[in-house]
Amino acid sequence: MALKTPEQFEESLKQFKPVVFMNGKRVEDVLSNPNTRTVVEANKASYQWALDPRYSQTMTCFSPLIQGTVNRYTHISGSNEDLLSKAKAGTFTAEMLGTCIYRCVGYDAFHALAATTWEMDKTIGTEYYPRFVNYLKMVQENDLSAAGALTEPRGSRKKRTLDWPDPFLSLKVVEKNSDGIVVRGAKVNISGAFASHELVVLPQSSHGEGEEDYAVAFAVPVDTKGITYICQYSPYSAERDQAEDIYELGNPVFGQRETSMVVFDNVFVPWERVFHCGEVKYSGKLVARFARTHRMTCGGTCKVGFMNQIIGACKLIQEYKGLDNISHINDQITEMVVLRETGRACGMAAAQLGSEDPPGSGVFLPDEVMGNVAKLNICNAFWRTMALAGDIGGGLIVTMPSLKELKNPETKAYVEEFFSFGSDEPTENILKVHKLLQHWTAGQHGVGTWHGAGPVMAQKIMLQRIVKFDHEKELVKKTLNLKEK
Amino acid sequence: MALKTPEQFEESLKQFKPVVFMNGKRVEDVLSNPNTRTVVEANKASYQWALDPRYSQTMTCFSPLIQGTVNRYTHISGSNEDLLSKAKAGTFTAEMLGTCIYRCVGYDAFHALAATTWEMDKTIGTEYYPRFVNYLKMVQENDLSAAGALTEPRGSRKKRTLDWPDPFLSLKVVEKNSDGIVVRGAKVNISGAFASHELVVLPQSSHGEGEEDYAVAFAVPVDTKGITYICQYSPYSAERDQAEDIYELGNPVFGQRETSMVVFDNVFVPWERVFHCGEVKYSGKLVARFARTHRMTCGGTCKVGFMNQIIGACKLIQEYKGLDNISHINDQITEMVVLRETGRACGMAAAQLGSEDPPGSGVFLPDEVMGNVAKLNICNAFWRTMALAGDIGGGLIVTMPSLKELKNPETKAYVEEFFSFGSDEPTENILKVHKLLQHWTAGQHGVGTWHGAGPVMAQKIMLQRIVKFDHEKELVKKTLNLKEK
Amino acid sequence: MALKTPEQFEESLKQFKPVVFMNGKRVEDVLSNPNTRTVVEANKASYQWALDPRYSQTMTCFSPLIQGTVNRYTHISGSNEDLLSKAKAGTFTAEMLGTCIYRCVGYDAFHALAATTWEMDKTIGTEYYPRFVNYLKMVQENDLSAAGALTEPRGSRKKRTLDWPDPFLSLKVVEKNSDGIVVRGAKVNISGAFASHELVVLPQSSHGEGEEDYAVAFAVPVDTKGITYICQYSPYSAERDQAEDIYELGNPVFGQRETSMVVFDNVFVPWERVFHCGEVKYSGKLVARFARTHRMTCGGTCKVGFMNQIIGACKLIQEYKGLDNISHINDQITEMVVLRETGRACGMAAAQLGSEDPPGSGVFLPDEVMGNVAKLNICNAFWRTMALAGDIGGGLIVTMPSLKELKNPETKAYVEEFFSFGSDEPTENILKVHKLLQHWTAGQHGVGTWHGAGPVMAQKIMLQRIVKFDHEKELVKKTLNLKEK
Amino acid sequence: MALKTPEQFEESLKQFKPVVFMNGKRVEDVLSNPNTRTVVEANKASYQWALDPRYSQTMTCFSPLIQGTVNRYTHISGSNEDLLSKAKAGTFTAEMLGTCIYRCVGYDAFHALAATTWEMDKTIGTEYYPRFVNYLKMVQENDLSAAGALTEPRGSRKKRTLDWPDPFLSLKVVEKNSDGIVVRGAKVNISGAFASHELVVLPQSSHGEGEEDYAVAFAVPVDTKGITYICQYSPYSAERDQAEDIYELGNPVFGQRETSMVVFDNVFVPWERVFHCGEVKYSGKLVARFARTHRMTCGGTCKVGFMNQIIGACKLIQEYKGLDNISHINDQITEMVVLRETGRACGMAAAQLGSEDPPGSGVFLPDEVMGNVAKLNICNAFWRTMALAGDIGGGLIVTMPSLKELKNPETKAYVEEFFSFGSDEPTENILKVHKLLQHWTAGQHGVGTWHGAGPVMAQKIMLQRIVKFDHEKELVKKTLNLKEK
Repeated sequence: MALKTPEQFEESLKQFKPVVFMNGKRVEDVLSNPNTRTVVEANKASYQWALDPRYSQTMTCFSPLIQGTVNRYTHISGSNEDLLSKAKAGTFTAEMLGTCIYRCVGYDAFHALAATTWEMDKTIGTEYYPRFVNYLKMVQENDLSAAGALTEPRGSRKKRTLDWPDPFLSLKVVEKNSDGIVVRGAKVNISGAFASHELVVLPQSSHGEGEEDYAVAFAVPVDTKGITYICQYSPYSAERDQAEDIYELGNPVFGQRETSMVVFDNVFVPWERVFHCGEVKYSGKLVARFARTHRMTCGGTCKVGFMNQIIGACKLIQEYKGLDNISHINDQITEMVVLRETGRACGMAAAQLGSEDPPGSGVFLPDEVMGNVAKLNICNAFWRTMALAGDIGGGLIVTMPSLKELKNPETKAYVEEFFSFGSDEPTENILKVHKLLQHWTAGQHGVGTWHGAGPVMAQKIMLQRIVKFDHEKELVKKTLNLKEK
Repeated sequence: MALKTPEQFEESLKQFKPVVFMNGKRVEDVLSNPNTRTVVEANKASYQWALDPRYSQTMTCFSPLIQGTVNRYTHISGSNEDLLSKAKAGTFTAEMLGTCIYRCVGYDAFHALAATTWEMDKTIGTEYYPRFVNYLKMVQENDLSAAGALTEPRGSRKKRTLDWPDPFLSLKVVEKNSDGIVVRGAKVNISGAFASHELVVLPQSSHGEGEEDYAVAFAVPVDTKGITYICQYSPYSAERDQAEDIYELGNPVFGQRETSMVVFDNVFVPWERVFHCGEVKYSGKLVARFARTHRMTCGGTCKVGFMNQIIGACKLIQEYKGLDNISHINDQITEMVVLRETGRACGMAAAQLGSEDPPGSGVFLPDEVMGNVAKLNICNAFWRTMALAGDIGGGLIVTMPSLKELKNPETKAYVEEFFSFGSDEPTENILKVHKLLQHWTAGQHGVGTWHGAGPVMAQKIMLQRIVKFDHEKELVKKTLNLKEK
Repeated sequence: MALKTPEQFEESLKQFKPVVFMNGKRVEDVLSNPNTRTVVEANKASYQWALDPRYSQTMTCFSPLIQGTVNRYTHISGSNEDLLSKAKAGTFTAEMLGTCIYRCVGYDAFHALAATTWEMDKTIGTEYYPRFVNYLKMVQENDLSAAGALTEPRGSRKKRTLDWPDPFLSLKVVEKNSDGIVVRGAKVNISGAFASHELVVLPQSSHGEGEEDYAVAFAVPVDTKGITYICQYSPYSAERDQAEDIYELGNPVFGQRETSMVVFDNVFVPWERVFHCGEVKYSGKLVARFARTHRMTCGGTCKVGFMNQIIGACKLIQEYKGLDNISHINDQITEMVVLRETGRACGMAAAQLGSEDPPGSGVFLPDEVMGNVAKLNICNAFWRTMALAGDIGGGLIVTMPSLKELKNPETKAYVEEFFSFGSDEPTENILKVHKLLQHWTAGQHGVGTWHGAGPVMAQKIMLQRIVKFDHEKELVKKTLNLKEK
Repeated sequence: MALKTPEQFEESLKQFKPVVFMNGKRVEDVLSNPNTRTVVEANKASYQWALDPRYSQTMTCFSPLIQGTVNRYTHISGSNEDLLSKAKAGTFTAEMLGTCIYRCVGYDAFHALAATTWEMDKTIGTEYYPRFVNYLKMVQENDLSAAGALTEPRGSRKKRTLDWPDPFLSLKVVEKNSDGIVVRGAKVNISGAFASHELVVLPQSSHGEGEEDYAVAFAVPVDTKGITYICQYSPYSAERDQAEDIYELGNPVFGQRETSMVVFDNVFVPWERVFHCGEVKYSGKLVARFARTHRMTCGGTCKVGFMNQIIGACKLIQEYKGLDNISHINDQITEMVVLRETGRACGMAAAQLGSEDPPGSGVFLPDEVMGNVAKLNICNAFWRTMALAGDIGGGLIVTMPSLKELKNPETKAYVEEFFSFGSDEPTENILKVHKLLQHWTAGQHGVGTWHGAGPVMAQKIMLQRIVKFDHEKELVKKTLNLKEK
């Protein structure tokens, strides 16, 4: 089956009727609600680029599974070149959208499942791998968009999961029967999802004896009965809700990142869509492999693209204000370039040093150390970039009037006169570029970048677990010719 | 005359009819518009505290000018103790409001005017000082609230002011007659103002020969004919506009900082309110003295108070989540404490090392080096605090649903279950504290803090101008016993 | 008795015969050994300044104990003004010496002892306070120089003190009799000491039940029988050892900081010099009060003085190279100024917020929070200052030839030609200033500054212990009008 | 001809009689002087590894020029794989030596010459390329070690080169005749050199009309008549000079980095060794291509190796002290790992994104942006690593006694007892590891790392020159749908 056109994608979404709430009210149609619409647009763009000759090499590839061309976001990387191509795609989509493509987590989850179902079958004799491959073929053949879910609500960190009064603070299997399983619980902070076709769910953490009911992974259509999406609602949501002209907003078409909590209230999943159920020793592996893929993505690819928008806006403002030769501004832009290229370098290194995991599985994952390093660096780099862009953009970024003043006969002339900076650029353009920087520096991106793919402590813990020091200690012993005890 | 009660303050505002626009529409009543109301509330609180026995020592003092008790924000500091008391007041008001008190700039402008009118009279024989003192007495006797204005629009930085095609990109005297002067131009980024009684205007920069018409300082009632306020409009403004219950907002009563552009379209100012007009050599002194006072305020006092709100919210979340003993979180909170105390120390040192300037004037100004150091430190400290608070608060800070979901029967139970973190704290409280951190970490405060009182480059330039190195070079020569050339 | 002249000080040292080893050999005479001589010189300077009318106000004060003028380093601060004066003295001595004055730790230990002996007598009926006062009077009357010792060797951190195979890895009382006590153990990392008159010893940490023999404080003459000093020996020591002309060294007269390990091998201390012995509950108080005083000193005073030498050298090099107007260098020097003033501000705030502790004791100690904040800031600030100075000084700081080449006829002309930078400053001066920066940026100062008064973790732990958050949490609850559970 | 054995290399050096001065005296034999010996050892190791089956793949490669195996440091990279292999070699040699291999600058200079002589011949018809290739073949066939020189003395930065009173503050051709050229001037800060066979010299900066005599590149044997080496002399030099047992030093065999000034006092260079002479337009290209190669090396390869030694020493000390589970230390080591891997990633990305320059030349150079980013990052990373290692190592790093105390019967037992940390590791080992950290954190490495390959400003200037922003600006215009002016 062929790749979907963007129009076919939008049409296909109309078949889905997810239960979505936002700002205390039901969202009747995710395609027309101004905030959920941004997610539709971002997903849709990924279909459009796949068919655009300028971008199709970035956005598509050959899948040996279905022996045909697929959207890269449904493909399992089988080589370092694949990983590198995905890194480039991640930067491309981010700089084009100025927000999340909403498909990486699904892609990352596919990798964790491909590797770990293969391994489970190999080592404990389950039959998950062919089941997963069948599922993935279906996704590829139908050119579906999949969201992924890992982050989770939790009970008190002072108690073990099994001791929580409410057992559903982690997603739990409440019933198993011959047809499938029934789960109850929730996932918070999922990006997009309600405008995808499929929702792929992984366990939240490693599990131990007795926690079998929490060791579960599966995929369901996004509007499966029992699933409820409760959307985020931020000041940016309110602003978009009341906007008459989206081109007065900071990121007109694609918005800030839209997330929601997903509640699974006794949701049935048929066995052919269950890929992990009770094998507690493998929950941690699913999480680790997911993180391995996802941290390269969040740390070394999409933020690089976001920075391109920020840097571009800063350069334009510098020109509007006639500050081209001011050394401290050029110095700040250079600092942003260094932060951006450092992110890119770590992403590339993660791809280049990636490896087949488990050996024999055919699944390539980015290098775990470099992926974590990429994410750790970008957490600080993004806040710093915000501060630098805020310096260049000036106070106007946060004190600017509504762009509606340009349509208000009583204020239009004043705004045009006093925000021109003496430049011959239309004041409307000047204000819009400032509005874009408001989007980047005075909204959700600092905190969001930090926590996407886990906060810094998650990366540090992982590094402490995987980095060994025998080589380094040997070097010292040899250099100093230390005597043995 | 006695200090105004908060009710009298609110009543007094009703006498003013400033021309205010926001979001493309006229604001008919600044007392009832949801966004301008926050400014009224903040100002009003300053009247309330002055009469509250718990806070009156902080908020009031004895003025030798009227031989009576005045609000500290209308008092000219006459000693290091006064400066220190003002520093404490700045922290107090900030931590109580979680936003600007909207009166510091006026207070700072009073100091610049008191010192410089005294100096002008002394050295070039003008008669501004008694005029200014009369004005200030009137302010004190009527317990008025004054906003101040310094920052400004500008023409191309590549050209000199006199070469700008539009001469009004800096505020300019367009007419002088026996009654007074007429000015045209604009001030951008003024905080509050439309909910004050008085607006005190200083020149924007030092001026040279030929720029006499730009060398102007004066005070006018906020609703003087010809003045138009064009308000900022941010996502936070939109959110407040549509809120039914302000307690669902991050800073319910006092909001984010509200600013506007102020346009002076041929505004008449009578001579008794003009304090500088044409004496170009003193424009720079007004600016420098204003900056000297204002940088201590912005760098070493109010942000310390803001950080208290942020730290308090982080501690509460830490407790809600049961993370009291997690070392990396305690480490992050300690880092915030260090940043806060460093700000406080620099503010205190600026007050303690402050001096009478000019000697004999009776006007005490904070130490110029320490004031600039305070501001430089806080620029970075505040962004860092935002990043740390964002880590502790978690992704929920930016992905949280509307508090309206707690009133929505279809989602209430889910939200209460899954955002409880297993704590017995009401979920409503948990969400509200996250909403407060959204206010601090995902809005205007990073950029705003950076640019208030001028961006870092302004402080660096000032330090490069005032710090001398003879002492340090002598130390080196003596240590090394260097021979003379 | 009068203050000693520097000559009398030097003469008085000849009465002492401490057992000192350095570089594997006995140091027969600390006054003539090139490295120990630097400590004599630094101490001696403190006597000289006390009698120099230019500096006597800084270096001396009135002691109510002996009703006469004493060197400030033997005085117990009895007010915030005293603390502030000591802060200024700390900066003054540091910038004059470019190294440690070797008397602060003694001064700090006096404060810990004065406060805690007073408190012990008051609460548990010991009679230490009059004993300590008598001792201190003797110190003041004879104008003695005292070193202090706190840091210590330790056994494995994995075991409790009482479980160490070697009980002497912490200083321990091994005998008590009617005349006094006998101690065995060691103190590492003491600064100076062998060129002082007195050595004041405090316990190393808080102690618990069963550790009574480790809860000990006392003072002894530096050459008491059983005491051995094993000196540090660094590349800088070797360089000084072989120097024929000390003016070819980076800090000609006063050198880098000289420390040693002090071994107490069954040292007898008579009861009149014992100030703490077995009262385990008070060991921790001695440590905490010492730290409170010492961290202000190390964080907020002496490093400020050191930075003055560094900044002065950078300015001179900038001038020699004709780089006066290069903006990035001025920017770097400004950054150093900000770091320096931040240190100064924290030191001043610690003094200004200091308090009588315990109340009634008459002993004023710096504010504990600010002292720790000062030290935390300076740890990073000093490394940063080194990096900045290294940038300005250039590679030559570390690659410069010996100044002896200026006396070598075969190389003199080349060195003078090629290191002149085209300046008319004598090349000798140019090289000497680079040598001074070598002293600061390529030696022991980074690590030394970090660890003096304890490494950053010690300050963080202290802050976590003393900073409370009730006020901050209340602010949040009030701002959000949170309902009670 | 075959690769030299290390013994053959040492023997070959005996044929050279360079004129070397150190500490005011002539160095008669660079092979036996303790400080110059370290350079011999480092070079020699590069010969040994080339023949060691464990390392030969890293250290050698196939050269198409001589159709045989050569030491990698004499090979011109002809592909991205070559660049990547060189990056790995750079890390390998650095972690084995703990100092400079002293051959990178020569290797980098070869690349600049190969590319630029090819380009000059192609575009302006010179005949340098075959001449250079012949020279390089000779180097490869004889397996010679070459040092390179770029950095230079300079006259006042306030004047142009041609206006300097002393024309030789930049290396200058003073005579040209049929046999060759004669040059006068100096190069400062060359690493090694006196223990190499060849010295390759490039111009110092781009040149303009009239500066033809400064536009010169050539190669000479290191002991060519007229060349004088005036060596650096640091505290570390003094320490090594007086050491009886080098295993009591921080880096026993290979030492700190040894550099010297090289004076060219009317040195004759025959035409067959002149590769650039008067073609001012190409001087800048030689410099830029050299920098492009050298910054990857210094920023992304050798410091990674150095960090391995530092990290290894920190881990050992952590174990000796029983601090394995202390979270803040593990956190610090993780931070060092992140800094190290970031350096490695940038180095790898520079190699991977490298390109043939000029196209057709067959010479591959690292990516210019990434090379500069690598160097910029490592400047700060190395100082930070020093600070972190200093924290873990503790004050003992700088206050430790001489290792000779372990041979001193009067102090040996004390040292062994009190520096054991209660560990059963021999105290000698414990002290030696601390001594290694002294080498890294209290010596020349901070400043040296910063300035090697140019200080940060050099990288920033280069980035400002080469990074373009059209793509980024277009992204913004498209996102906002900006209207054209």
